[in-house]
Amino acid sequence: MLHRDPWLLPDGVEEILPEDAQYLESLRRQLLDVFECWGYQKVVPPFIDYLDSLLTGSGHDLNLQTFKLTDQLSGEMLGIRADMTPQVARIDAHSLSHQQVSRLCYEGTTLHTRGDALDKTRIPMQIGAELFGHAEIDSDIEVIQLMLEVLAMAGLKNVHLDLGHVGIYRGLVAQANLTEQQELELFEVLQRKANSELVELLEKYAVAADLQTIFLSLPKLNGDKSVLAKARTVFATADTCVSNALMQLEELADILHSYYPALTISFDLAELRGYHYHTGMVFAAFVAEVGKEIARGGRYDNIGQIFGNARPATGFSADLKVLAALTKKSQTAADIVKIFAPFVLGDRALDEKVRDLRASGNIVIKQLSGQQSNAEHLACNQILEKIDENWVLVPLN
Amino acid sequence: MLHRDPWLLPDGVEEILPEDAQYLESLRRQLLDVFECWGYQKVVPPFIDYLDSLLTGSGHDLNLQTFKLTDQLSGEMLGIRADMTPQVARIDAHSLSHQQVSRLCYEGTTLHTRGDALDKTRIPMQIGAELFGHAEIDSDIEVIQLMLEVLAMAGLKNVHLDLGHVGIYRGLVAQANLTEQQELELFEVLQRKANSELVELLEKYAVAADLQTIFLSLPKLNGDKSVLAKARTVFATADTCVSNALMQLEELADILHSYYPALTISFDLAELRGYHYHTGMVFAAFVAEVGKEIARGGRYDNIGQIFGNARPATGFSADLKVLAALTKKSQTAADIVKIFAPFVLGDRALDEKVRDLRASGNIVIKQLSGQQSNAEHLACNQILEKIDENWVLVPLN
Repeated sequence: MLHRDPWLLPDGVEEILPEDAQYLESLRRQLLDVFECWGYQKVVPPFIDYLDSLLTGSGHDLNLQTFKLTDQLSGEMLGIRADMTPQVARIDAHSLSHQQVSRLCYEGTTLHTRGDALDKTRIPMQIGAELFGHAEIDSDIEVIQLMLEVLAMAGLKNVHLDLGHVGIYRGLVAQANLTEQQELELFEVLQRKANSELVELLEKYAVAADLQTIFLSLPKLNGDKSVLAKARTVFATADTCVSNALMQLEELADILHSYYPALTISFDLAELRGYHYHTGMVFAAFVAEVGKEIARGGRYDNIGQIFGNARPATGFSADLKVLAALTKKSQTAADIVKIFAPFVLGDRALDEKVRDLRASGNIVIKQLSGQQSNAEHLACNQILEKIDENWVLVPLN
Repeated sequence: MLHRDPWLLPDGVEEILPEDAQYLESLRRQLLDVFECWGYQKVVPPFIDYLDSLLTGSGHDLNLQTFKLTDQLSGEMLGIRADMTPQVARIDAHSLSHQQVSRLCYEGTTLHTRGDALDKTRIPMQIGAELFGHAEIDSDIEVIQLMLEVLAMAGLKNVHLDLGHVGIYRGLVAQANLTEQQELELFEVLQRKANSELVELLEKYAVAADLQTIFLSLPKLNGDKSVLAKARTVFATADTCVSNALMQLEELADILHSYYPALTISFDLAELRGYHYHTGMVFAAFVAEVGKEIARGGRYDNIGQIFGNARPATGFSADLKVLAALTKKSQTAADIVKIFAPFVLGDRALDEKVRDLRASGNIVIKQLSGQQSNAEHLACNQILEKIDENWVLVPLN
């Protein structure tokens, strides 16, 4: 016997039962079909890999989230993927090695050592699309459009877009001559928007007064488009790469506004989501019902460098389970035709009728010998009945 | 930098690139649709679980094949599923707890610590169907028919069916009063068909002479239907449960023959595949190209017992990757319509045309700014051209 309640699943681990599983499957197909229509080809990265390959170019966060295994065959350390994006970049860099643009998409189970505060699952189903080999703004736009299309296709309304640019923080850090360790500490404090600690750190690192002012104003630079105008003033003394990043953001926002006049866009210049591998614009989609982003992405040029093929890259991903939970409409039994076929030993005409009905895509459930359950128990709404020597479909109420 | 060649994947771990991934996806959908038409509802068991839950009622083999993890949240030992069948039985026994027949299907990644000799992959994609709550032969027949339908749907021809019944070995072991340890040793030797060791063991266990003869003839009892007649003679002195098992096999073979006169069926009475959880008939499908079974299943009553709900059960499963590798037809580029849309800044008529084409399920690939690649590079066979102020589709070549 088991020591604990045998029904208990570990925290953040869940079984998906028929009704939810069916909706998840149909949403999965719908979204993968959108990717295909946009020219994104599906790839299936491996579920496990050498740990160092999985963590290449990524940060401490991904390491913490990655389950480790010892490979009995090689004795080496393996990891279970916690994020599929670096794996897809590896496929682009290596297996598809060419100088063309490549568009890839994927869907698969990932595993996290811990769930996060808002989304407890440790088994997200990551779905996403990545565009490699193009560094200009129109590929960022394509990827954001694809994300919005996918969210609309899933049935999500009133999606809100949040834009940022990690080039701003990177530029300021470079200008301030911070060491890698200092950069990480500052990053951590900025993420928490802990203002007094930020003041202390900037003093401790002896950052120039004008740069201090800029760093201190970063957490306040979030909100609607007016933020960009404020930022232009604040960043007046910053390096060109900082102002370039700001210009890119403005350009992106203008183009998106022209495509989607009704879309609410906000800006967050301290936003450093996925900072460790992102290099340029970052974006996230929100809806009012959920306290965290429901899809996210951005530019992460050169991630394939370690694999010998640095390529510009941009993409987005989401958790299919989150999208499904937000959009699932409860189906009534009447929505699906289910046919009940009674148990009749050796009736070949019935067998053939059942085969033909299934071949044309109908759900037919055969009664088994001695089975008490009838059509209603099985949620069937039609039944096969023998009338004048022919098996015919009869609707049930 | 990585210590080894950064391209290297661990043994038995593979990336699936676009062409194969696309075929795998379409096969996956096709097979899941067959399950649905037969009334099998999809469930998604969790990728990890407490180790003891995963291994409940299973044998040493599954333990060896299961990767172990420490749960950072609970400190308990977790396992990564190496077989989904016990997980589905648990869902039936617990979450769907009822006294009706339930039909469930599933598809998902499993992980093995080692590949086997013939099939090196350590990441099989298990697909299968299970029928719970019915103990009679017609549910075994339904499941075998479903397996044959799935293999035919995948495009496999000349499938060969192998039948066995673990009730024979179980009955003989009971009759010989063997201890659990002796049963396991004998099992292991029988699996290897190591005749001289078998003789030694039977002597050592002081098995009665007539039973020794039966045990020794088991490995020879394999071949076509004539095996069953031979077995009747050999098993003359065996307990009723042994002859009952034999009768069940004969009945099953007769019914299957009446449905599929052209199907080759062979019998292997020493076949103990999945012995640890199977309790009755076992079956496997073979094709000439592969040295091991391509799908397998059988009856495994009472597997839910540990979860407080013992139910009769029968089902089958296969590795989707194996089925895909056997049936993949190479598609020529011409089979798929791919449309190339040139880069034209701010042309809303073009944007709308692209949107409409995609909405009707066409693949449209947008050229990006400054991109050298043209329609041919992207394997497109149609192109959008502006003719008389309208964007129209023009076939290439």
